[in-house]
Amino acid sequence: MIVRIGGAGVCRTDLHVVEGLWRDKVQVALPHVLGHENAGWVEDVGKEVESVKRGDAVICHPLISCGHDLAARRGDDMHSSGGLFPGLDSNGGYAELLRTGERSLVKLPRTLAPKDVAPYADAGLTAYRAAKKASRHLLPGEFVVVIGAGGLGHIGIQVLRALCAAEVIVVERSPDALALAKEMGARHGVAADGNEVQAVLALTDGKGAEAVLDFVGEGGSVNAGIAMTRNAGYYYVIGYGGEIRISTMDMVASEKTIVGNLVGTYAELVELMALADRGKIRLATQYYRLAEANRALQDLRAGKVRGRAVLVP
Amino acid sequence: MIVRIGGAGVCRTDLHVVEGLWRDKVQVALPHVLGHENAGWVEDVGKEVESVKRGDAVICHPLISCGHDLAARRGDDMHSSGGLFPGLDSNGGYAELLRTGERSLVKLPRTLAPKDVAPYADAGLTAYRAAKKASRHLLPGEFVVVIGAGGLGHIGIQVLRALCAAEVIVVERSPDALALAKEMGARHGVAADGNEVQAVLALTDGKGAEAVLDFVGEGGSVNAGIAMTRNAGYYYVIGYGGEIRISTMDMVASEKTIVGNLVGTYAELVELMALADRGKIRLATQYYRLAEANRALQDLRAGKVRGRAVLVP
Amino acid sequence: MIVRIGGAGVCRTDLHVVEGLWRDKVQVALPHVLGHENAGWVEDVGKEVESVKRGDAVICHPLISCGHDLAARRGDDMHSSGGLFPGLDSNGGYAELLRTGERSLVKLPRTLAPKDVAPYADAGLTAYRAAKKASRHLLPGEFVVVIGAGGLGHIGIQVLRALCAAEVIVVERSPDALALAKEMGARHGVAADGNEVQAVLALTDGKGAEAVLDFVGEGGSVNAGIAMTRNAGYYYVIGYGGEIRISTMDMVASEKTIVGNLVGTYAELVELMALADRGKIRLATQYYRLAEANRALQDLRAGKVRGRAVLVP
Amino acid sequence: MIVRIGGAGVCRTDLHVVEGLWRDKVQVALPHVLGHENAGWVEDVGKEVESVKRGDAVICHPLISCGHDLAARRGDDMHSSGGLFPGLDSNGGYAELLRTGERSLVKLPRTLAPKDVAPYADAGLTAYRAAKKASRHLLPGEFVVVIGAGGLGHIGIQVLRALCAAEVIVVERSPDALALAKEMGARHGVAADGNEVQAVLALTDGKGAEAVLDFVGEGGSVNAGIAMTRNAGYYYVIGYGGEIRISTMDMVASEKTIVGNLVGTYAELVELMALADRGKIRLATQYYRLAEANRALQDLRAGKVRGRAVLVP
Repeated sequence: MIVRIGGAGVCRTDLHVVEGLWRDKVQVALPHVLGHENAGWVEDVGKEVESVKRGDAVICHPLISCGHDLAARRGDDMHSSGGLFPGLDSNGGYAELLRTGERSLVKLPRTLAPKDVAPYADAGLTAYRAAKKASRHLLPGEFVVVIGAGGLGHIGIQVLRALCAAEVIVVERSPDALALAKEMGARHGVAADGNEVQAVLALTDGKGAEAVLDFVGEGGSVNAGIAMTRNAGYYYVIGYGGEIRISTMDMVASEKTIVGNLVGTYAELVELMALADRGKIRLATQYYRLAEANRALQDLRAGKVRGRAVLVP
Repeated sequence: MIVRIGGAGVCRTDLHVVEGLWRDKVQVALPHVLGHENAGWVEDVGKEVESVKRGDAVICHPLISCGHDLAARRGDDMHSSGGLFPGLDSNGGYAELLRTGERSLVKLPRTLAPKDVAPYADAGLTAYRAAKKASRHLLPGEFVVVIGAGGLGHIGIQVLRALCAAEVIVVERSPDALALAKEMGARHGVAADGNEVQAVLALTDGKGAEAVLDFVGEGGSVNAGIAMTRNAGYYYVIGYGGEIRISTMDMVASEKTIVGNLVGTYAELVELMALADRGKIRLATQYYRLAEANRALQDLRAGKVRGRAVLVP
Repeated sequence: MIVRIGGAGVCRTDLHVVEGLWRDKVQVALPHVLGHENAGWVEDVGKEVESVKRGDAVICHPLISCGHDLAARRGDDMHSSGGLFPGLDSNGGYAELLRTGERSLVKLPRTLAPKDVAPYADAGLTAYRAAKKASRHLLPGEFVVVIGAGGLGHIGIQVLRALCAAEVIVVERSPDALALAKEMGARHGVAADGNEVQAVLALTDGKGAEAVLDFVGEGGSVNAGIAMTRNAGYYYVIGYGGEIRISTMDMVASEKTIVGNLVGTYAELVELMALADRGKIRLATQYYRLAEANRALQDLRAGKVRGRAVLVP
Repeated sequence: MIVRIGGAGVCRTDLHVVEGLWRDKVQVALPHVLGHENAGWVEDVGKEVESVKRGDAVICHPLISCGHDLAARRGDDMHSSGGLFPGLDSNGGYAELLRTGERSLVKLPRTLAPKDVAPYADAGLTAYRAAKKASRHLLPGEFVVVIGAGGLGHIGIQVLRALCAAEVIVVERSPDALALAKEMGARHGVAADGNEVQAVLALTDGKGAEAVLDFVGEGGSVNAGIAMTRNAGYYYVIGYGGEIRISTMDMVASEKTIVGNLVGTYAELVELMALADRGKIRLATQYYRLAEANRALQDLRAGKVRGRAVLVP
């Protein structure tokens, strides 16, 4: 299955791969083509493929799975064994063409073009899955904190607004991102200035939020995030780079839950596309030509990208 | 509401209170009567009490709650605010009589005597709640590890056997406790000798268990427990004293969940009594007279108690 | 506990009581004061009451429960035994003062006045609970049908919009109500003209909706409602008067689920008030003086009430 | 994918197909080979098949699905569109060889032979799925009624025992089947003699059971089954032939739920095999040679089969 790339998202994980952060988890053989957020048009299909045809606009689920092990049969694609993750352990979408599998392709509704949705394939899907998990237990009158309103966080806020009625509080260092977060539906903005725990407690009767989604996952965000989680509440780890450190006694006395989050399933990517199709979520994107990939990565590292960077042909 | 004590469980938490471990969490005024695992007979009731009468055999839920805040109205007794926890923040059951509230009393079926069930009030209820949470997602063909087959662990094993069909693997230092665990229904016993992670991986296709219940929560058990949890699996913290330390990247890449566990609800104590009534769980107990309370505590500290120690009149 | 009535909702169930439809379910002793949707101000409290005080604005959960049986302890107030339901089996709120219990009172946020919220106590709570049940399984890209956009239905539409991202299709006879439904957030309106099943199938790829909420429950709505439910979907019965009739073979082959719905819990009334407080739902109301109660009932029977009728002092 | 049949279960649905009961649901072209409960050994595989190889002992999930539609991607195999159901809409396993698909095959553990497990493919899987649904909400101290302890029912009883701690009450006409049911773990046996509703109410404090699994689904079982379901409880329809008829008012006032049940997923068949492998369920079978298929069907119709009939080579 070959897909002609219409858009390839540029992700902080790409920087992490370059920096060697994933060295222990996956083997990257050089030369390596980055790019795990891909969308485009079907260019060529195998003989037995029936679900898509040449020319169809598609977004690619980041994992290519065989579909035969038990995790896959339960719909839990990310924990299927033996799959490939283009851009991480095989060649990705910073290219004109991408080799992928039939099982990875989600057909796009006519309202959505590949270059507009590429970052949903991983960043969007990750934010969606975490926000969906939280929305399963968040009730009206409850609170949810989003730490970090960048590329993933600003999608997470919109998904929370679409899937539940809890009040969204955003914790963020950048005043610009905080302003954007409020546009996206956050009710309260809190500056990440070292007093954010007190600020969140003040907004939540001194008890903290029923759910905290941490899109930063490093620096002070972990301790702060757990501290602003209410007893019996849930702290969702999405960003990474830092460390969780908490006594078992505090875990027991508070009965908190700490949840790791990893991308999402094929079906969840279909759900996310439905949200985008209905206009319930929108993406702030900044385009670069494929030949400018290195500049895009440098801009991302320098914090110059607003929303998500996308490479286009 | 006054209850004449028929049995008062002696718990490791009592030692922790003496040692000052709970100093930051609750205020203990001296002199203080320990004892938060209480059962007996209703001695005296207030005018408006209708649900029990003098002479009824009862077990006491450890928390006295008002019943009017939102957590209580949702059945989430342990997270109700403003309650009392006799033996911890008010006088407990190392005594002839205990002052408690109508909302704390569960009537005992005729098959169960107070001195036989007292440890269920806290130790049993804690083990039950954690095992019940795990049983909600454990499917036939899956694995559950119980770390520590002592007072709580041996109840946890039996509850798991009653509520789900997952295979139970017990990790335990003491050969005696390991033998007891197998009698209680564990399928595999693993010595906690430093190689327990490898041993559990070998039993689970190299992938780990879908759920790990850690009744130790200190020393090497925390790292080992998280390591033997399968990707997308759940690590339940029940014992305490140690520390959880894990990188956010490992949490994300593995999508594991870490769950704190705190006693259980009133309804869960009713459920636990139903299990005991039907003979699905039994308790290894060792009796001491009330006057021998100090000796019981010393035996517990010295590791000389098999199962649970109970003070009787 | 005495509440001075600020608003008493007039409900179709009141007509059903007059007509004798409830004769088999509850004993109504004459003279009888109707009124089970009550809100007002605390007038007098018993000695031991701590959760409210004289003057507090409150809405009354329709059931007065003791709080001591197992259903109540699990938060399942409606299935608690031995409670009273003022207006149905004891005197209700078509009056200046209402006798109720501390456990029935939900304090109102300052944004909400008793006369504006009274119908939420039963009509709103019933619609909320059914919509909440459906929202638990409705995913983005899925469909939910609301049959009947009257007093309950127009609340149900708004709750669905607040709690999930499924597309709402409204089936309704009255063009006015259909227009109102679209204002409230329904995406598609379908005339209940005998072709509604075909119309819904046409909107849902020929497969039907994942959830159908039937606020009519009589006449053709039952057969139509089940027919427009997708295989593996849920048909929620809220309105009553008619009959469900379906072969066991159709139930098996379609794997549909039929769900009865009865008011809601105390905690759900708190959640509903949070939605109203945040402006996520609003109520179309028409006021009558208490002395005009009979006229209000007649208008309701004649179909002259838009939204809900409320009696005020 | 070709499977050499080692065992083909003979099912009441085969009689129903002969009788024309399924005429409205599926097109059966004559000549037609019955048999939808198949197990055997892989005889021949296509080029790209990797998950099984020639000689593997397998049980066949009854539905051959493509795996590409959204239901399949969520693991909901039975509601995948466009699949084939050998024995119903294509040729089945009353034969030496069966044509099926890679996605249908579950490898058998070494403890299980094809002829011993064939009836699990449909009868067992159906009973498993319904019992699993019920076990998700059944708590210790609660009751579950099994109506009909025949081919499916006796599996259902064992699954309930394995997956939850609720007390099992069996309602059954045949004293022999009732005796078998008690061996399988039912605590109470009730004769289906017209007084079964009263008998079940007497065993359940006058309130009925939290779950009723109706493996009969015709004659008096439907009305009786719904009547013996407790308020807020669940009535599971598994057998068919009769009709459900209940007023919407009764559904609303009781808040009961009626659940249709259709076979089960691929993953659930894996789970069921794990139960069989561990000895948690066993099957009463009666063997016939393939050439005696007609006699097996006649014996089944005449009520002469104890447990399940299985055709062997």
